[in-house]
Amino acid sequence: MSIMDLGMTERLKPIHDKVARMVREEIMPLDGEFLAEVGRDGDRWSYTARQTEILEGLKAKARERGLWNFWLTESNRGYGLSTVEYAYLAEEMGKAHLGAETFNCSAPDTGNMEVLERYGSEDHKRTWLAPLLEGRIRSAYLMTEPDVASSDATNIAMSCERDGADYVLNGEKWWSSGAGDPRCAIYVVMVKTAEDGPKHQRHSMILVPADTPGIIKLRAMHVYGEDDAPHGHLHLKFENVRVPAENLLLGEGRGFEIAQGRLGPGRIHHCMRAIGQAEMALEQMCRRSMRREAFGKPLAQLGANYDIIAECRMEIEMARLLCLKAAWMMDRGDPRAAAPWISQIKVVAPRVALKVTDEAIQMFGGQGISQDTPLARSWTHLRTLRLADGPDAVHRRQVARVELKKYTQEKV
Amino acid sequence: MSIMDLGMTERLKPIHDKVARMVREEIMPLDGEFLAEVGRDGDRWSYTARQTEILEGLKAKARERGLWNFWLTESNRGYGLSTVEYAYLAEEMGKAHLGAETFNCSAPDTGNMEVLERYGSEDHKRTWLAPLLEGRIRSAYLMTEPDVASSDATNIAMSCERDGADYVLNGEKWWSSGAGDPRCAIYVVMVKTAEDGPKHQRHSMILVPADTPGIIKLRAMHVYGEDDAPHGHLHLKFENVRVPAENLLLGEGRGFEIAQGRLGPGRIHHCMRAIGQAEMALEQMCRRSMRREAFGKPLAQLGANYDIIAECRMEIEMARLLCLKAAWMMDRGDPRAAAPWISQIKVVAPRVALKVTDEAIQMFGGQGISQDTPLARSWTHLRTLRLADGPDAVHRRQVARVELKKYTQEKV
Amino acid sequence: MSIMDLGMTERLKPIHDKVARMVREEIMPLDGEFLAEVGRDGDRWSYTARQTEILEGLKAKARERGLWNFWLTESNRGYGLSTVEYAYLAEEMGKAHLGAETFNCSAPDTGNMEVLERYGSEDHKRTWLAPLLEGRIRSAYLMTEPDVASSDATNIAMSCERDGADYVLNGEKWWSSGAGDPRCAIYVVMVKTAEDGPKHQRHSMILVPADTPGIIKLRAMHVYGEDDAPHGHLHLKFENVRVPAENLLLGEGRGFEIAQGRLGPGRIHHCMRAIGQAEMALEQMCRRSMRREAFGKPLAQLGANYDIIAECRMEIEMARLLCLKAAWMMDRGDPRAAAPWISQIKVVAPRVALKVTDEAIQMFGGQGISQDTPLARSWTHLRTLRLADGPDAVHRRQVARVELKKYTQEKV
Amino acid sequence: MSIMDLGMTERLKPIHDKVARMVREEIMPLDGEFLAEVGRDGDRWSYTARQTEILEGLKAKARERGLWNFWLTESNRGYGLSTVEYAYLAEEMGKAHLGAETFNCSAPDTGNMEVLERYGSEDHKRTWLAPLLEGRIRSAYLMTEPDVASSDATNIAMSCERDGADYVLNGEKWWSSGAGDPRCAIYVVMVKTAEDGPKHQRHSMILVPADTPGIIKLRAMHVYGEDDAPHGHLHLKFENVRVPAENLLLGEGRGFEIAQGRLGPGRIHHCMRAIGQAEMALEQMCRRSMRREAFGKPLAQLGANYDIIAECRMEIEMARLLCLKAAWMMDRGDPRAAAPWISQIKVVAPRVALKVTDEAIQMFGGQGISQDTPLARSWTHLRTLRLADGPDAVHRRQVARVELKKYTQEKV
Repeated sequence: MSIMDLGMTERLKPIHDKVARMVREEIMPLDGEFLAEVGRDGDRWSYTARQTEILEGLKAKARERGLWNFWLTESNRGYGLSTVEYAYLAEEMGKAHLGAETFNCSAPDTGNMEVLERYGSEDHKRTWLAPLLEGRIRSAYLMTEPDVASSDATNIAMSCERDGADYVLNGEKWWSSGAGDPRCAIYVVMVKTAEDGPKHQRHSMILVPADTPGIIKLRAMHVYGEDDAPHGHLHLKFENVRVPAENLLLGEGRGFEIAQGRLGPGRIHHCMRAIGQAEMALEQMCRRSMRREAFGKPLAQLGANYDIIAECRMEIEMARLLCLKAAWMMDRGDPRAAAPWISQIKVVAPRVALKVTDEAIQMFGGQGISQDTPLARSWTHLRTLRLADGPDAVHRRQVARVELKKYTQEKV
Repeated sequence: MSIMDLGMTERLKPIHDKVARMVREEIMPLDGEFLAEVGRDGDRWSYTARQTEILEGLKAKARERGLWNFWLTESNRGYGLSTVEYAYLAEEMGKAHLGAETFNCSAPDTGNMEVLERYGSEDHKRTWLAPLLEGRIRSAYLMTEPDVASSDATNIAMSCERDGADYVLNGEKWWSSGAGDPRCAIYVVMVKTAEDGPKHQRHSMILVPADTPGIIKLRAMHVYGEDDAPHGHLHLKFENVRVPAENLLLGEGRGFEIAQGRLGPGRIHHCMRAIGQAEMALEQMCRRSMRREAFGKPLAQLGANYDIIAECRMEIEMARLLCLKAAWMMDRGDPRAAAPWISQIKVVAPRVALKVTDEAIQMFGGQGISQDTPLARSWTHLRTLRLADGPDAVHRRQVARVELKKYTQEKV
Repeated sequence: MSIMDLGMTERLKPIHDKVARMVREEIMPLDGEFLAEVGRDGDRWSYTARQTEILEGLKAKARERGLWNFWLTESNRGYGLSTVEYAYLAEEMGKAHLGAETFNCSAPDTGNMEVLERYGSEDHKRTWLAPLLEGRIRSAYLMTEPDVASSDATNIAMSCERDGADYVLNGEKWWSSGAGDPRCAIYVVMVKTAEDGPKHQRHSMILVPADTPGIIKLRAMHVYGEDDAPHGHLHLKFENVRVPAENLLLGEGRGFEIAQGRLGPGRIHHCMRAIGQAEMALEQMCRRSMRREAFGKPLAQLGANYDIIAECRMEIEMARLLCLKAAWMMDRGDPRAAAPWISQIKVVAPRVALKVTDEAIQMFGGQGISQDTPLARSWTHLRTLRLADGPDAVHRRQVARVELKKYTQEKV
Repeated sequence: MSIMDLGMTERLKPIHDKVARMVREEIMPLDGEFLAEVGRDGDRWSYTARQTEILEGLKAKARERGLWNFWLTESNRGYGLSTVEYAYLAEEMGKAHLGAETFNCSAPDTGNMEVLERYGSEDHKRTWLAPLLEGRIRSAYLMTEPDVASSDATNIAMSCERDGADYVLNGEKWWSSGAGDPRCAIYVVMVKTAEDGPKHQRHSMILVPADTPGIIKLRAMHVYGEDDAPHGHLHLKFENVRVPAENLLLGEGRGFEIAQGRLGPGRIHHCMRAIGQAEMALEQMCRRSMRREAFGKPLAQLGANYDIIAECRMEIEMARLLCLKAAWMMDRGDPRAAAPWISQIKVVAPRVALKVTDEAIQMFGGQGISQDTPLARSWTHLRTLRLADGPDAVHRRQVARVELKKYTQEKV
């Protein structure tokens, strides 16, 4: 059927209302306190008692209300939401720092859970998927490496050699987001298992428990001076890290196959959360522009502020519609056809959200760049999205290649 | 029901295919010849025999195939297409110079026909609507005046005074598009009928036959040096132009009421045709970039051309989705709710189409700015859309006002 | 000495004042009438008596006042102005349509005169340079061809074969600006004289009188619908066009050597005239914004207009300073060092002038795109500058290459 | 004389060379270590022994070489450099984190020292100016307040009431940059001394020693998550802070008079350091683009990177020239005439530097946003400049007002 319904479905409406209300009324008001607690007891890499209380309290409430694991699309265990439907929820979750985690819908866990569900053994599912689904542990996805251009993932170099019943891993990973979290128990790791053969069949995906000997936490990467503790983006070194051979998923050389399936929905989620961040920023900007006065007038009435607000509104609407279209393409079941749409939103959504957030920051003046609003933190997070999962340039290249192929079958 | 279907419906698909194919295969190939004929027989303001042959030939074919008057939405005489459905057709029509007229869907006729259908007397319908519906005559819409800021339509000043059984009109109008066409038989004219009273109730809409004595064609306005003959954008003077009192539509003081109903759909049509122009330009750009070589490589592979192509693709997709959303809002039957969406696309669609067309022109080099491609003409037409029916600034202002009102009931 | 004086010198000041005043008070007021005369007597490709009266009247006045041939830098016959000094005059001339020609400083004549002075024989100088210096004839520069990418000038293909005491030319040229002018008597033509050898030594420059048999004027190229008659940008065909061998300048294979020397100053002049056009547009925009009212206020006080005006002012200042710096580099006598600066302004100056002019057009509404202000015509002329003498992309490439070479001697 | 020399003077050349070399060879290599030391001994708000060693070592070397207090323009104690000359040095200092402080040319000390020199008593000069000139103490400038729009400085509200021989201050200040530094000994504070009278004569400037009782350090403001310890941007509370009446500079109500004189040169210095940051970022970007490979090629050769590099080069050149022009205007001795030029660069220089730095970050991928390059820190610092000393919108407004006044004497 050819209906391209980008609207909110009837069944989604009540769920969406509950999620939106919980984000606004219960999560947002606690975000600031949660963040201010970081490091209060002397260790930035653990949670304070109050942080645990806040986070687990929110999670318990959400779970109780059945607002949990929405990302389980097409699953008989979940809501079976379509990607379009999930997108609307992701937007709401994006508005609060603890939004996604409250509903057990955080990156990189959702992607990792999907990988475990599709490619994990029964044992993997019992040991890692079950507690992840219950929000008792967290996970990390180890892809990027310090010495190679991440824009071309075939450069990934962490070695993974078979040794009897085990694989032995050596190398470095960085930007391992979430690996700083004391609850992070399992890593899904992209490794190189062959030096030869077709370029996209040399890599594999393997499960590595976080407490495996030989894993050294070198340091936390900063994002514009922010370490995002205790979540963190760690730089890790693997020295002869040994795991059972059955931890290798799907088979040697099938790393990219898994990664592709994993990244598509993840990018849509990221983008829709970015739209949520943009909406939050625009709301803040509007409220501020009416509340704050200068030269005897509310800021809204000064200079180009009407135009700025209008441009932000228009750009958000367009970016959201494009995300929903990409989600709809994903729902049609042909990932190859959906790919260029996902590349498009990967470029567009962070850009729009960054712009809107930057304008909001400017409207707030000194307060905007400070810890007093969520805007500066939101901006730095959004800025990482122009690099994570492929920099803009790579996605633009993909879009252009698809465009040109319409007119020729030759590769250009 | 809350389905927001922005896709092509089943019933539209075959119609769309026919229209798209006719535009590409039959209309586009004749555009160049048609335009080159202008003034060939010494008079730019009449059609040459060959022009008539081309145009009437295309119209006859379209009508024969039932591809006619699609704009008659919700009408039992037409297809009863929704605005969303019509939007998809408008996009195709926008790709060729003679696209809209071939299917009797040209501006300003469609808007004028809607006005006649809704507010005209039986006599008006017989005399003007019937031949318009059959494509035998054309019409013009006289709004803008040389001496007042058109951004604020309450400035409109053409006087219209009752004198016995008649109204007598005096004043000037310009940018009367289509008034140069020898087939243009009827003008729908916005006039001022009261000096006092509420600002939006001082104006009226009145029908003036083009051959009424006292109408002086002062000159043709140029658009970047192009007079668009024989269609033309005329500067007219009305000196004691007398028409029967019954030509005044709906009643004195109701001009804005009529104008509002007329402009919404018209703006959507303009915007979707602009999307069509953008698609055409992008296609030209891609083909050129693969065909033309410099420094031993196709242009596509040089410099930032991949990025330019990708950005154009992304901007078109977003603008189209926004137009479809605005059309969908219009279809929901609440023009007040649809208004800010129409303001949004009015700003966005011409901007995107101008940008894409300008990039295509740059890819073509000297040829791009010349008469050898449709790009330069397309650009100048698109540029007028940033001014027609309200300049960008006015629409941005509307969008911002709606945005701020979400947070306060006070006017800011 | 290392003084980088970008200001107006003492000796220039009085000359500048006279030129600026003459442009504003005597030339500008006649521009409109001059342009409206085009084709009035039925032939767009000749001058009407009134046009001749206007143009020759202005030239006579300028010459009488000694305001003539300023471009003769470093010459004992001219003012001996530096390029920086000339740049200030070019800015003023750019403000009026007849500005440059009034002072015998038009393109392409200035460049052609320099070529004749440097490389012409005594006979060439007597026959062509002398009347050009006196403003009695005009000239054209034939470079671009329809079938090859002009961004890579080594593609130029017009053949030029030695046949006894003559050369015989065959091929097509287009965008031959000024070739439509009945006074245009001499063409400077880039031709291909060798099929082999180093890429930049296969071309030559040759003089071809405009009345040589075999030259066919195929048509006038349009610039956004404007043919710029009677100046014109012609598409010419050369069929066995025969000229004496001594018409070939400097020697076979030295075409690029001549072109390089010719283009540098010419690009600076173009850019500074563009700055003049931008200044004129900004002035128009400001005056309009204070004069015109909407919603009960002058436009200046509405929306983002203050910000638009400020941005235009800032961009003009920066672009002018960059042009002056490039001119200063040119004056230092090392064209190789000046080249990347000229590439920079070639990208920047037209871009800024286009932007400012477009904003001015928007401020004028329908009037802005029409024949009622010089803005639309100015815009289309400026748009050609993004293509003429190398498209933006080629100049950006040059700038980047120079930048990267700072860090490596290897070619990247 | 009208020479507008924007180049480097003969006398400046050797000084510039020394400063540039010291920045590149001695300061830059220590920046990373200095920054990594912050908080190493458990207290972010003091300097570690190694930090002191680094900083004082550099200062001692600079002073020994006579590279000290360059900002003392027009002074018989300093170099007597012009603002243009100083600008060239500021650019070099901007390239390293410790650049300005090494040469005792840091903000806000230079501005504060100028204030002390011009308006301080002999006692003030002995107590505060002397050690500042020697680099033994540092200072802060307390202007902005949390509860009022800083874009309109007449909102400043900290009360300062006469009580016998003293003034007593109450209120809050924030973004007091440098107030976190243990060496910061003196605050120059903008206060309100009158509730009535002309708007710009209600405020005064007063000296407050940092250790005066009643000053409470509420917290450090973060800049995108970075606290810039131990320099810091503090939020301070003044509770009955009592200072001798003679600490009030120049007289009650003359605060704005002092502020104006103080801010002009300071803004030029900020802007030229921003240009230095941009140059540093462009250099990093170029080097990275040639060193790093993806898809088998250096990044420089991929996608739009050539164009990005070229655009950055062009924008830097233009912004630098505009800063130099503003500096030259300042040197002419008419601050009123220089003011709009300073407003222009205040908008332009941070914008360009932010853009270039952001592009460099993108070229570095994950490393760019991290602590591994100076880029992310540089970006956040530059971002504050769009707010400090007046947000962009206020400066644009000033530029537009001056522009419009050219055409009317009436205020618009």
